[in-house]
Amino acid sequence: MSMPRQMHLGAFILGAGHHIAGWRMPGAEAGSENLDLIKRIARTAERGKFDLLFLADAVNTRPDMHPSMVLRLEPLTLLAALAMVTERIGLAATASTTYTEPYNLARYLGSIDHMSNGRCGWNIVTGAFADAAANFSRDRHPPHDERYAIAAEFVEVAKGLWDSCEDGILTMDKASGQFLDAGKMHALNHAGTYFKVKGPLNMSRPPQGYPVLIQAGASDAGRDLAGRIAEIVYAVHQDIEVARAFSSDLKRRAVGFGRSPDHIKIMPGICAIIGGTEAEAKAKLAELGECADPKVALQVLAERLGHDLTAFDLDAPVPDLPPSGVMRGHAETLTALARKENLTLRQLRNVVAASMGHRLMVGTPEQIADGLQEWFEAGAADGFNVMPPWFPGAFDDFVDHVVPILQKRGLFRQDYTGTTLRDHLGLPRPEHPLAHRVLVGSMAASG
Amino acid sequence: MSMPRQMHLGAFILGAGHHIAGWRMPGAEAGSENLDLIKRIARTAERGKFDLLFLADAVNTRPDMHPSMVLRLEPLTLLAALAMVTERIGLAATASTTYTEPYNLARYLGSIDHMSNGRCGWNIVTGAFADAAANFSRDRHPPHDERYAIAAEFVEVAKGLWDSCEDGILTMDKASGQFLDAGKMHALNHAGTYFKVKGPLNMSRPPQGYPVLIQAGASDAGRDLAGRIAEIVYAVHQDIEVARAFSSDLKRRAVGFGRSPDHIKIMPGICAIIGGTEAEAKAKLAELGECADPKVALQVLAERLGHDLTAFDLDAPVPDLPPSGVMRGHAETLTALARKENLTLRQLRNVVAASMGHRLMVGTPEQIADGLQEWFEAGAADGFNVMPPWFPGAFDDFVDHVVPILQKRGLFRQDYTGTTLRDHLGLPRPEHPLAHRVLVGSMAASG
Ligand SMILES: Cc1cc2nc3c(=O)[nH]c(=O)nc-3n(C[C@H](O)[C@H](O)[C@H](O)COP(=O)(O)O)c2cc1C
Ligand SMILES: Cc1cc2nc3c(=O)[nH]c(=O)nc-3n(C[C@H](O)[C@H](O)[C@H](O)COP(=O)(O)O)c2cc1C
Repeated sequence: MSMPRQMHLGAFILGAGHHIAGWRMPGAEAGSENLDLIKRIARTAERGKFDLLFLADAVNTRPDMHPSMVLRLEPLTLLAALAMVTERIGLAATASTTYTEPYNLARYLGSIDHMSNGRCGWNIVTGAFADAAANFSRDRHPPHDERYAIAAEFVEVAKGLWDSCEDGILTMDKASGQFLDAGKMHALNHAGTYFKVKGPLNMSRPPQGYPVLIQAGASDAGRDLAGRIAEIVYAVHQDIEVARAFSSDLKRRAVGFGRSPDHIKIMPGICAIIGGTEAEAKAKLAELGECADPKVALQVLAERLGHDLTAFDLDAPVPDLPPSGVMRGHAETLTALARKENLTLRQLRNVVAASMGHRLMVGTPEQIADGLQEWFEAGAADGFNVMPPWFPGAFDDFVDHVVPILQKRGLFRQDYTGTTLRDHLGLPRPEHPLAHRVLVGSMAASG
Repeated sequence: MSMPRQMHLGAFILGAGHHIAGWRMPGAEAGSENLDLIKRIARTAERGKFDLLFLADAVNTRPDMHPSMVLRLEPLTLLAALAMVTERIGLAATASTTYTEPYNLARYLGSIDHMSNGRCGWNIVTGAFADAAANFSRDRHPPHDERYAIAAEFVEVAKGLWDSCEDGILTMDKASGQFLDAGKMHALNHAGTYFKVKGPLNMSRPPQGYPVLIQAGASDAGRDLAGRIAEIVYAVHQDIEVARAFSSDLKRRAVGFGRSPDHIKIMPGICAIIGGTEAEAKAKLAELGECADPKVALQVLAERLGHDLTAFDLDAPVPDLPPSGVMRGHAETLTALARKENLTLRQLRNVVAASMGHRLMVGTPEQIADGLQEWFEAGAADGFNVMPPWFPGAFDDFVDHVVPILQKRGLFRQDYTGTTLRDHLGLPRPEHPLAHRVLVGSMAASG
């Protein structure tokens, strides 16, 4: 009997919970600057044998942002800290290709991959918040498709930098005095449209070759980049058919770039409100809804639709808006939902308050497990990005009650079998470009 | 009886040791990518009650660089990791104001300060390696004094960003639903010569207000910046009188900027080769000298003098060279030494192989302690930046044999009395600029 295809699970750690009112629930702790809480969440995710944990990011703020996002620890340094208090779980964070330098970011991520023994992942974003530009001496957030062109070149540079050294460069032979094999160090000499980076990177090749590359492209340009380079794709779906079409499209694009469809894992987000009974779960959702701050909820919706909403009538149908230049996946999913269910702006605002547009699942552990299995088996998902509405309780419930059901059904691992994030995901370690070539032009000659 | 003035000690962790041949010594481990070793070194420094540990940095490499520098973990992520495996010691790293963005760096450092409960320090450098420019899409490394002008503005922006939130901003009142006090969040609206940064930073004010600011200015522009903002100053001295004059000059400059001379701690580097007898220590130095790679030694000297040296005769006197545009402190100290002792280039190269220009101390633990006490009591130093020639053995020797002597003499703490790096150094926590003012124009009005 062969092992059934395995589901992948990621824990999306938004410190105060995904629901904007999650932090107000009894027993809930906040938030995104609470290292002690985040350490406990990471350990819970590892106890649940999750493939990875994930930290979102933005490089701007305002006081009425989502309480999980307004003030936060910086994700790369946080990831490095979490590497010290976990053993096996993958560790992924968002970092922007618009507001960082490839040489710096390749170092941060490579360093985390080294320190975690191959558990690092990078969510490549071009920046979903246009306000960021003003924090970086820029006149404007670059336009959508240009951001993706920058991102594509950035990733190419980062990969080249991670390939600066071939494996085994450090010889450290005390007897001969040879510290390293200079023939295994290579300059990059990249000169492209947006970046000029000579290299080499001052770091050995990361244990995973490259950190696992994650992307959440929803626009054509975004999907194209995802098809080209993403190994995990985050998505925002409410509808199984739409999710299935999205997954097929992404895998088709990957195949078009000469990749295996198995090496691009589609992971839609889900926000699970779990109760001992369905009624209990629904009561929790109602309680959360009553606790939500309407002003913050409207701001979160505005970010996801990419437009200021303060001038619109809350009790009229959701208005027609031009396509979003930022979180297009969220915008399309939410707009489709509003049209299908004929929602007012107020109603859509309340949906976003709960799950930010992601699939909201309300029910018993069995019902949640059924809902995951359905999408997984229909080819709408290779796994799920689990977005607990609050911490730690709602996540404990998922790990203690939903995960065991998935395990019993043979859909999810009982324990880790490998050590790296690539192992967990069944992804190969990318070979060094020179692995099969005769060496020419190394730093040995010029150094 | 009042407590005598206390010496401060920093551990300069160059992973393969300060001596370029340190890694070849029996029992030595290398190097700068060896997290397990670095964790042990950090714990040893904490056992020795050091004020802080320090990680240097550069954003470029070449195969014939110093073996501690050629390949390395990235210091900010490494610092975050070390925060998890230490309890009390200060944690400082180098980060460049030329090749990072203030918004990003303020987040990394602020996050480390939060996660370590107030133990972060930042060595502010403008970049001692001109080759870095080619890794950052730049045509050239900005000229020396312009780099300092950028640095001064960068630090001003960083401080402003750390002040984005007043203390106590997070109210997290579940009953009322008030997550934060929006009146305590402030935009920066900085628009200067080099940076335009609106803010606010998406982080509460760090536990220390600002991380401890470290600088190693040796040029006039460098000393000026140090006098203005540095709380620790690293220095390179061989001569007690020169060191004393340097210390007086820096403290005078600080006073000129309205600061207390006690709030700028001068910490010259020392490289101690310790033996049970003086002869044993000297034998170790000789052994190290024989193991040193002459090509790497010449490259390290070239970096410190700021000029390529490959064309010069090794057996002629050290040539006259124009002033260095980069590591001027090292260059001046080394040139003075060469002139005073009439050294050939080969001889100076061998000095640099050992200590990179820093004070080399060779002898028994008592002799080392005497040498430290002498400089400390003469006002040539407030403490020392301890640069072990190799790891872990040479550092264990310092902690196990030199520190206890300093403690017995009442010159150095028996145990930590505070919890933050500012506590260890006797530095006040900078007050928030609005601490004593009536609030006007907060984000509450505009948000
Ligand atoms: C699960 C998920 C997480 C995301 N996390 C971030 C993030 O942390 N920071 C960010 O700027 N954008 C984030 N995004 C937004 C994406 O970067 C992107 O803007 C969005 O998916 C729209 O894609 P498009 O630009 O191709 O239209 C996330 C999207 C999803 C679905
Ligand atoms: C102990 C010490 C550590 C230093 N660490 C670094 C470093 O990590 N990275 C760097 O680029 N420069 C480093 N420097 C060099 C200084 O940033 C600076 O270039 C040098 O002190 C000369 O100062 P000047 O530019 O004012 O002439 C260090 C200097 C000293 C004395």
